[in-house]
Amino acid sequence: MILCVCCNPAMDVTYAVAELVQGETHRAEVIGRQAGGKALNVARVLRQLGEPVLATGLAGGAEGDAILADLAGAGVAAEFAGIAGQSRRTTTVYDGRRATGLYEVGPEVGDAEWRSFVTLFTRLAVDTAVVVISGSQPPGVPVDGYAELTRLAAAAGATVVLDAAGPALRAALAARPDLVKPNRRELAELAGRDLDGPDDLLAAAGALAEAGAGSVLVSLGADGLVALTPDGAFRAAAPAPLAGNPTGAGDALAAAVARGLRRGDDWPDRLAQGVAVAAASVTVDHAGATDLNLAAELLPAVKVEAIR
Amino acid sequence: MILCVCCNPAMDVTYAVAELVQGETHRAEVIGRQAGGKALNVARVLRQLGEPVLATGLAGGAEGDAILADLAGAGVAAEFAGIAGQSRRTTTVYDGRRATGLYEVGPEVGDAEWRSFVTLFTRLAVDTAVVVISGSQPPGVPVDGYAELTRLAAAAGATVVLDAAGPALRAALAARPDLVKPNRRELAELAGRDLDGPDDLLAAAGALAEAGAGSVLVSLGADGLVALTPDGAFRAAAPAPLAGNPTGAGDALAAAVARGLRRGDDWPDRLAQGVAVAAASVTVDHAGATDLNLAAELLPAVKVEAIR
Repeated sequence: MILCVCCNPAMDVTYAVAELVQGETHRAEVIGRQAGGKALNVARVLRQLGEPVLATGLAGGAEGDAILADLAGAGVAAEFAGIAGQSRRTTTVYDGRRATGLYEVGPEVGDAEWRSFVTLFTRLAVDTAVVVISGSQPPGVPVDGYAELTRLAAAAGATVVLDAAGPALRAALAARPDLVKPNRRELAELAGRDLDGPDDLLAAAGALAEAGAGSVLVSLGADGLVALTPDGAFRAAAPAPLAGNPTGAGDALAAAVARGLRRGDDWPDRLAQGVAVAAASVTVDHAGATDLNLAAELLPAVKVEAIR
Repeated sequence: MILCVCCNPAMDVTYAVAELVQGETHRAEVIGRQAGGKALNVARVLRQLGEPVLATGLAGGAEGDAILADLAGAGVAAEFAGIAGQSRRTTTVYDGRRATGLYEVGPEVGDAEWRSFVTLFTRLAVDTAVVVISGSQPPGVPVDGYAELTRLAAAAGATVVLDAAGPALRAALAARPDLVKPNRRELAELAGRDLDGPDDLLAAAGALAEAGAGSVLVSLGADGLVALTPDGAFRAAAPAPLAGNPTGAGDALAAAVARGLRRGDDWPDRLAQGVAVAAASVTVDHAGATDLNLAAELLPAVKVEAIR
């Protein structure tokens, strides 16, 4: 089973407006409404890939109820710890040309609430092959919260994929996650410098590996990915970038790679699957979904090369 | 008792963002979250004025639940008919300079749902001195829906205040509401021409009176109001415009005038109270509230003049 950990789930709402004019009032048509947060996007894609998946995390208030109802409707099994605060909403306003995002920060999580989630997580991790911890921490979760989860999952024998950024990622490296998955911007932020070209990216990825990460996968959007693994360093990309909505493509990548880890595929296979599933997801207009037929079509054309 | 009818209630959420940049993603801080819709703003101000008030209308879904919970928290008694659809949300994004509004349209109301609300309304109207029908109709409510409510309320012996616009207002005039309350833009829209100066406004107001309205109160924002009543035509204004948030000032005006109708004040008194309560409401940063002390202070300085 793959356990997806979403500490800061969101109700993602998408509005269409005729034209967004600052200072004016707009008639907004709801064109999308689904539970989100990166780990829930991962869980949805895993579900689509036919993997046994369970979503967990912290949720509360009316938005929390709506998030859980939406997951149930999507057939994603979920077991969340309740919190007194209100889970967040993200609103994306699409005016036909631009997507403007308004993201609430997320509820304050109390100490006791976090401890209660950790207890739940510890129980769920027992039957789990792979744990995917993904996305932001809401206020109140300790900065080493992901480090604690990583240690607990490893102690339970699970493989840990961590897709986080900033201080939460930095703090978790010492707990030795099996895979971390920063994008170029997040890696540059950790490195404290601009990153250019595969050598530069691999050097920065190497620093994360030295700090404790088993493997480092750097997602590069339409340019594919660069990965540093125990089996070597690789570059992988789809034959040509596809037009569409790139939101959630990184989560589709994480889902396919998590499946590869669960199955014991070798690294080049995992990476090729990840690139194909992520590239195909761009053609679907909402996050947390891919086009399985297109992914299967793209797969033979994905180039994976060893780069040192 | 004053019954406030809100057919299209909303959960009104206000976000603060650092600067609104189209095409970017923003961290949005929730700085306001309350049940809204014009009639609910009226109900809140009536409650603040110490009037016995009951809110009714149609509400559904998670947003409907949140709206009812918020009213309960604010001490506003409410009895709503349920609907299968989801009540709407309005989002206002404030970036320190401009307020940009994103207003969902509202749920589709089915025939049977509307009939069920009319049955509820008929029962509630029995014990009611004044009925305030205010705001937009959600999709599916018949265009003569407010006309029907007006007739039922009048048959039950209630005085009817109608604050609507466009076709719903036009259709309701034949049902002879005691007071209609368009603003300058709404009156111009009905008249089909630009309106300039009190004479022009009174002529357009006269057309509404001929079509069936007992009195016509035209709200003019910071310029006060012009009113055509059975006791004559009046102009009323606060001594000086106040700085602040004018959203909901028209609803504060409606609340104070509804109280005046319930108490049997004469028209100049009602209008002066209305202007004072509305002007003071501008200094409060959210809709549906006024500053009672400031309103009492302003009252003696409100000028009401007969204008013909």
